[in-house]
Amino acid sequence: MKLVIGDKLNSSWSMRPWVLLKHFGIPFDEVLIRLGRHDTQANILAVSPSGKVPCLVTEAGDAVWESLAIIETIAELHPEHAMWPRDAAIRARARSISAEMHAGFADLRQNMPMEITKHAPGTGATPGVLANIARIEAIWAECLAKSGGPFLFGEFGIADAMFAPVVMRFNSYGPKLSETSRAYAKRITALPAVAAWIDGAREETQ
Amino acid sequence: MKLVIGDKLNSSWSMRPWVLLKHFGIPFDEVLIRLGRHDTQANILAVSPSGKVPCLVTEAGDAVWESLAIIETIAELHPEHAMWPRDAAIRARARSISAEMHAGFADLRQNMPMEITKHAPGTGATPGVLANIARIEAIWAECLAKSGGPFLFGEFGIADAMFAPVVMRFNSYGPKLSETSRAYAKRITALPAVAAWIDGAREETQ
Repeated sequence: MKLVIGDKLNSSWSMRPWVLLKHFGIPFDEVLIRLGRHDTQANILAVSPSGKVPCLVTEAGDAVWESLAIIETIAELHPEHAMWPRDAAIRARARSISAEMHAGFADLRQNMPMEITKHAPGTGATPGVLANIARIEAIWAECLAKSGGPFLFGEFGIADAMFAPVVMRFNSYGPKLSETSRAYAKRITALPAVAAWIDGAREETQ
Repeated sequence: MKLVIGDKLNSSWSMRPWVLLKHFGIPFDEVLIRLGRHDTQANILAVSPSGKVPCLVTEAGDAVWESLAIIETIAELHPEHAMWPRDAAIRARARSISAEMHAGFADLRQNMPMEITKHAPGTGATPGVLANIARIEAIWAECLAKSGGPFLFGEFGIADAMFAPVVMRFNSYGPKLSETSRAYAKRITALPAVAAWIDGAREETQ
């Protein structure tokens, strides 16, 4: 299995399936395509029909693209891991917030772009971004209260992986957060798979 | 089971799970919230935590939101129907194009908004929209060639439901399409479940 990703510094979509695979110890070959170069688009199109990263290439050589489709496919391939919650009703809620992340929060994504080594607290917080953050904090608070933590649905899973790049943005831009959100962001940042991604991003800048 | 939707005339996201449920003959109660009114947001928030439609409310009273999460949940609840392709590799491709639709094609969505009774051929075709349409036509052509049709993966399924609102846009704005795309759009439009949605939209305007 091969996971084609963009720069660890910036590619928030790539981070999601990468962290998921690492956390669950699923072996894969990483293929990193540098973004923003003259041959980036050609390099991506050679593997990913949508022209975007991430893209999973299965053992059989099939391309699977879009973070959410990749993640559903990984979850199907590895039913031994509870990547989604085992309970159907809780799984439906995990899918709801993961899909909301997948298609939403455009203001946050535009005004607080992921750049892992960036430290610029107090910037980027437009009214639209603050509305996005309020919704994210409401999601986290509700999930953590219902599950008891330490992650959104108890143990670390897909929904946490979907929100991990948001935590990277919060670490960089430092918006005002509730204590619950801050503690959750700390736990995500300290997760070995996330820390490994961060280390990779730092190495890119050296 | 209850499906909360917006106006059939405009709510492209609502159309997807509605058409899917209708096509497979799954009984549900339809709750239609009129959009663009002073109490719209309050009405939606009363059932859907994300403040958006569609929202599925299960027998147990749990809210499931975002079209893709709703659709995955419906597929899980009804394994007797091949809503996703039965073959794992083909299912992964169906999920890829469905997720691509879920999060992408922003130009098309902005410049060719769904308004089912609209007839304005030749409008809305910005360069960004044309690029979106080229990608959609490539997806359709590849899927139809591989499956043999009549729908993207043979029989009508989730991927077709995800693209049904795109067909509605093409019917209204009449961009230049390949013969393959036109024939597929005709088949989608003629599908009884889609025709029933279109009838509902027409009734809203009377």
